[in-house]
Amino acid sequence: MKGKFITFEGCEGAGKSTQIRFLSAYLGERNIPHIVTREPGGSDISEAIRKVILDGRFTAMTDECEALLYAAARVQHLADTVAPALEAGKTVLCDRYLFSSFAYQGYGRGLSRKFLQEINSYAIGHFMPDIALFLDIPPARAFERKHGADRDDRIEQAGAEFHRRVYEGYCRLTEEYPETIVRVDCSGTKFETKDKIARLLRERGLIG
Amino acid sequence: MKGKFITFEGCEGAGKSTQIRFLSAYLGERNIPHIVTREPGGSDISEAIRKVILDGRFTAMTDECEALLYAAARVQHLADTVAPALEAGKTVLCDRYLFSSFAYQGYGRGLSRKFLQEINSYAIGHFMPDIALFLDIPPARAFERKHGADRDDRIEQAGAEFHRRVYEGYCRLTEEYPETIVRVDCSGTKFETKDKIARLLRERGLIG
Repeated sequence: MKGKFITFEGCEGAGKSTQIRFLSAYLGERNIPHIVTREPGGSDISEAIRKVILDGRFTAMTDECEALLYAAARVQHLADTVAPALEAGKTVLCDRYLFSSFAYQGYGRGLSRKFLQEINSYAIGHFMPDIALFLDIPPARAFERKHGADRDDRIEQAGAEFHRRVYEGYCRLTEEYPETIVRVDCSGTKFETKDKIARLLRERGLIG
Repeated sequence: MKGKFITFEGCEGAGKSTQIRFLSAYLGERNIPHIVTREPGGSDISEAIRKVILDGRFTAMTDECEALLYAAARVQHLADTVAPALEAGKTVLCDRYLFSSFAYQGYGRGLSRKFLQEINSYAIGHFMPDIALFLDIPPARAFERKHGADRDDRIEQAGAEFHRRVYEGYCRLTEEYPETIVRVDCSGTKFETKDKIARLLRERGLIG
């Protein structure tokens, strides 16, 4: 049986890594085979592309270049890592996916959805997630949480106004893709969020 | 006055670098301001992308990933290098451009033209070359010239059959874009080819 494809979306500092760790532990305790991966990256080639995308020196990168690099990293990550895992019946937990491109390069940078859909046509045609969890935390709070933690990469440098547009983008995408994107209110503690996510995935039959 | 955009196309070993050097010297002697650049590359970010594209270890790179990386490098190179030079009235001599993507990723790898046009829509919409010189040399001879010279990169590794499809692709593209692509018979010496190119560009009013 084909594995389930669960993606985590949201602003910087929304707690995706923490919740992925929690869910991985939950699956591990139940002996549910799974992998944890991320975008951009998750394969040798895609990690090499990630380095170019996030390089803090590359402040002159155009929005189109950025979007094309994300799409390139995505298609390679699907081929190298996600597709083999799903075929082997494993659950895939992925930190960011397609909707991050719509939110960041679309709503954030201002590129057209049509262009983003075209350059991501392989992902859209073959690998839509079973569920995309939008970890909803107000952008000001997320921004606060994240900054100062470590040296900012090129995306984190983009400023509060950019991150507010990204957040609003996620909110609109949630309305646009109600079958796929589920908003998870993260205003409580991380343990409360953890329980919400596990309940949600059980209800949808996505985890045992 | 906006500068002229002259691109050089053709198979590996067709003599593009040599002819670009000749033409640059010709322009230099006549004090015609120009730059020499190349794809993929020609700017900091695009050279970083080039390293990923050509890395000989990345044999698992998918065709879609490759095409998206070329498009990413192209759009950045246009913004950083080509557009500023053209705006400053300089002639731009570029080693490979859009038609290389149609020939290599399209005819060579088998990706659809539609996909290639979509991911290259910025280049197509804003920066079509004034002329694309297709240096025509039978692929077997070109392959022979090139190989053994130095360690093959990932594209050069692709084999004779791939390079034959690329060559046929260029021939078809020449028929499809008769206003832009001009076939230059390179069966003579490199000096004969040099004179042909200079004559051609003078006739078209592209060089002084």
